[in-house]
Amino acid sequence: RTAVIKCRAAVIWQAQEPFSIEEVEVAPPKAHEVRIKILATGICGTDDSAIKGKFREVQYPVIVGHEGVGIVESIGEGVKGFKPGDKVIPLFAPQCNQCVSCKDPRTNVCTTARVKNNLIERPKGLMADGTSRFTCKGKHIYNFLNTSTFTEYTVVDEIAVVKIDDDTPLANICLIGCCFSTGYGSVLNSAKVHPGSTCVVFGLGGVGLAAVMGCKAAGASRIIGVDINTAKFDLAKELGATECINPKEYDKPIQQVLLEQTGGGLEYVFECTGKPETMVAAINSSHFALGTTVIIGVSAPGETISLDPLMFIAGRTLKGSIFGGWKAKDCVPKLVKDYKEKKFDLDKLVTHRLPFEKINEGFELLRNGKRYVYLMIY
Amino acid sequence: RTAVIKCRAAVIWQAQEPFSIEEVEVAPPKAHEVRIKILATGICGTDDSAIKGKFREVQYPVIVGHEGVGIVESIGEGVKGFKPGDKVIPLFAPQCNQCVSCKDPRTNVCTTARVKNNLIERPKGLMADGTSRFTCKGKHIYNFLNTSTFTEYTVVDEIAVVKIDDDTPLANICLIGCCFSTGYGSVLNSAKVHPGSTCVVFGLGGVGLAAVMGCKAAGASRIIGVDINTAKFDLAKELGATECINPKEYDKPIQQVLLEQTGGGLEYVFECTGKPETMVAAINSSHFALGTTVIIGVSAPGETISLDPLMFIAGRTLKGSIFGGWKAKDCVPKLVKDYKEKKFDLDKLVTHRLPFEKINEGFELLRNGKRYVYLMIY
Repeated sequence: RTAVIKCRAAVIWQAQEPFSIEEVEVAPPKAHEVRIKILATGICGTDDSAIKGKFREVQYPVIVGHEGVGIVESIGEGVKGFKPGDKVIPLFAPQCNQCVSCKDPRTNVCTTARVKNNLIERPKGLMADGTSRFTCKGKHIYNFLNTSTFTEYTVVDEIAVVKIDDDTPLANICLIGCCFSTGYGSVLNSAKVHPGSTCVVFGLGGVGLAAVMGCKAAGASRIIGVDINTAKFDLAKELGATECINPKEYDKPIQQVLLEQTGGGLEYVFECTGKPETMVAAINSSHFALGTTVIIGVSAPGETISLDPLMFIAGRTLKGSIFGGWKAKDCVPKLVKDYKEKKFDLDKLVTHRLPFEKINEGFELLRNGKRYVYLMIY
Repeated sequence: RTAVIKCRAAVIWQAQEPFSIEEVEVAPPKAHEVRIKILATGICGTDDSAIKGKFREVQYPVIVGHEGVGIVESIGEGVKGFKPGDKVIPLFAPQCNQCVSCKDPRTNVCTTARVKNNLIERPKGLMADGTSRFTCKGKHIYNFLNTSTFTEYTVVDEIAVVKIDDDTPLANICLIGCCFSTGYGSVLNSAKVHPGSTCVVFGLGGVGLAAVMGCKAAGASRIIGVDINTAKFDLAKELGATECINPKEYDKPIQQVLLEQTGGGLEYVFECTGKPETMVAAINSSHFALGTTVIIGVSAPGETISLDPLMFIAGRTLKGSIFGGWKAKDCVPKLVKDYKEKKFDLDKLVTHRLPFEKINEGFELLRNGKRYVYLMIY
């Protein structure tokens, strides 16, 4: 149980290169670490940014992937609350329950020194002790967002993984690890959408569709989906969008279209593309006094948005959100229970299931707008 | 009572020119308008921006000034709730109580078509019927922010003026018309500062000092004042600042100084300078996850701020505020009562009192950092 495991993993040797399925060595978990057999993992736009070199945290070679589900294979010294065989979801947004942030109900961003996440400085892509658990062809391989799920086995810090109910169906549940929780929570926790309100979601990928589901759950009366890929509109409507708009079908800026169609702007705006120009359009489509814009999409390092400060003078609000504002250890098990009780329909988000070795094909599907893609590893 | 009044007013004939004290004709109030004898008026940085051509709403020739107190001289047809002799404060942020915004508790920005304020398009500097009540040397003079207080008599829409108690002492109370309410309310209404929290105020002019007073009233445990004019520090401390910082005394950016001195940033940041570079520093000095920045300062038309969207990812919030978020008709009389009951000490904000004809001298004092200056017209 504490030996090195040899298994398959999808390694990115350098930015821009495709995944290479390799045999890697996964070291045993050290103190306060958990080794997990990954059973399924989603493909997220952030992984795509990472392999393109457009995410600020990545060091190569790397094993990316951060939205998975698995079972505990072994535990390191001092680990409490996990045993081999437990069903778990790795957490790219850890929760140590010790730091000042974890004790503060206003934030879900753990700031422990033990696991620095992508929001905090160094160490990047390494465990708490500054080393890696992955090697391949004699080289250390970096991890990604404390998780690294594109591998048959991974090692995570105990604060970056949470147990879920043993009877949880495995199909699709990995979406709780990022996409679903991020979009859904940004509506319920970050924006706190109120019943009868008007909402727009920019970008109808997995996160955006989950935001649509959140708006519906919150009782919004108008939920507008915006995407340049009209193939996504049917599903968006099925999940709760009251209408969908393709900016390319108008000869004026999308913010102007939305201001006109809503009599002055939306109360809640969710930006799920990560593109600076879309962020600016999103903020401008919010109501000049009442509007709240939540930026969920992740922009590339060095990208900026230019704003006229006067646009905020009447009270407009801009804020960000990560992992939907959920405190992950507390909330992921509850979200899993809600899924089991059919409080939301995660399954509709999945468009494709592929075997692990088709990971490059999966990313091509993502790039071609065929969200949501999901890899079976087991 | 309904005749044209000839009186003195301070006219700006063209941007960048000094005030010229002129004899002007003030027409009688039309329906739903009120003619006011101005008794005192404050000098605000926004007036200075306006005469420099750095405020987007101004058309010349103009009578600026928007922070005043006076008594009703006469009323137009259909005006209810005012009679000659009433003490009143003109409202640059009107409240019609009819529009969808006035009926919405979340905003103080009236959006009636009757009086378009500086946040809404046209008419600019004119009454609801599209005409002016001021003429001088045969020329129409524009008004400013629905108020125009640098004149012995002005005419305002009935929705842009509020009655205050007859026994209100006139000295200093004009500050309720802008500066005090703006700073104080941004803390209590827009940011909703909570007891024990950490706050910083950028810019210790009248608005900034009022924000300091608001932070103290809200029970903040740490209130940092930031200004490049150290002459303002004593008063800031007297009003509630626990410490003051001059950015010029450091060889690193002020945001870095503040992050270091607060262990990661402030919970509440108030930007009262209107300068884009200070706004960016302000936002960056807020806590990366918990911080809320309120922009109160008014930037010049065309000025922009460039932000890295990733700075918001952990939940940082940016918002604006006008007139401190107070619904003016409802709240100004209450603020006046609170002043009379000594719930806050407005009088400390006043540094100079000048007769009306020394208005140019008053603006020089403002430009030299001698806030708060106030003109006696009566």
